[in-house]
Amino acid sequence: MLYPTPIAKLIESYSKLPGIGIKTATRLAFYTIGMSDDDVNEFAKNLLSAKRELGYCSICGNLTDEEDCAICRDESRDPSTILVVEDSRDVSAMENIQEYHGRYHVLHGLISPMNGVGPDDINLKSLITRLMDHEVQEVIVATNATADGEATSMYISRVLKPAGIKVTRLARGLAVGADIEYADEVTLLRAIENRTEL
Amino acid sequence: MLYPTPIAKLIESYSKLPGIGIKTATRLAFYTIGMSDDDVNEFAKNLLSAKRELGYCSICGNLTDEEDCAICRDESRDPSTILVVEDSRDVSAMENIQEYHGRYHVLHGLISPMNGVGPDDINLKSLITRLMDHEVQEVIVATNATADGEATSMYISRVLKPAGIKVTRLARGLAVGADIEYADEVTLLRAIENRTEL
Repeated sequence: MLYPTPIAKLIESYSKLPGIGIKTATRLAFYTIGMSDDDVNEFAKNLLSAKRELGYCSICGNLTDEEDCAICRDESRDPSTILVVEDSRDVSAMENIQEYHGRYHVLHGLISPMNGVGPDDINLKSLITRLMDHEVQEVIVATNATADGEATSMYISRVLKPAGIKVTRLARGLAVGADIEYADEVTLLRAIENRTEL
Repeated sequence: MLYPTPIAKLIESYSKLPGIGIKTATRLAFYTIGMSDDDVNEFAKNLLSAKRELGYCSICGNLTDEEDCAICRDESRDPSTILVVEDSRDVSAMENIQEYHGRYHVLHGLISPMNGVGPDDINLKSLITRLMDHEVQEVIVATNATADGEATSMYISRVLKPAGIKVTRLARGLAVGADIEYADEVTLLRAIENRTEL
């Protein structure tokens, strides 16, 4: 049986979301019908306003609902350090630990030779512009520990080092709580190479 | 870091859905920002119209966007058989096999003594009204094979049998493709009791 049109359309909308198949979409659609009017109206409004009001910071590329993001506007943040991440969720993860007080730069992607994504396809040019304008002393590359993440960090280091800027990246090693027995070989290799004195 | 208000609100809306925690909600919200304007507008519209336009069939309780549902309006369906289900998704599952040509009755819940849900809390009264008005010969109880489903089917059979109506329920036994080795004891017991001749 086909469902009545309004719910069939809602199921279709839900199933366009990542990781949500037709069965989950159906469950969510039926749940939606049982939700309060207020919650559903709020949901629809939030969808539209997130899409309409959000944009990217003109300086660092972070997600913001104003011209510049809250971090770039914050005068107390150290302008001599820029931490480079793939997307705004990484900014949020770093901010959660409350230990980093410099600025950010959001790439919106990673260099991926396998997928034909080159340096010009991500938000990299504006990073180099920022380095010329400001007195940046260190760029910390905080891309994921994947092949594309490594390729991106290698590229950034090769471009920036000749300009005399210190380029660092996040430490590689055992995750806290990890079993040596189950750690992969590359991780173990990095953990030995980068061992620290007790 | 707190996200900008529009995305924080959208994350909150997503996380109200069942089975969606804060991490998945964040992923969905970021995905939404990357969706096309048309898709997001359509999604918001579908949310509102599903909530506004859908109601329950005045005869059987099935989900519909009209006064009576498509099945109750379909004159070719056999009015002498009513299949009783918990919710509209069960109607859809039965219709998918294209083998049942009678009518339905949707309970919107199951009798659940443990949770204090009695016969008056589900859509049961209207079933009894339907039986008085029409020439129904058989009521097939198709509730889930759970404790509440069993309680509901027992109750319906006890109420309807004295009125001379044939009450049946779906067969219990091994699911097609199931391993005997892994079948639970009650299922195996039912499968032996209800064995059929080859």
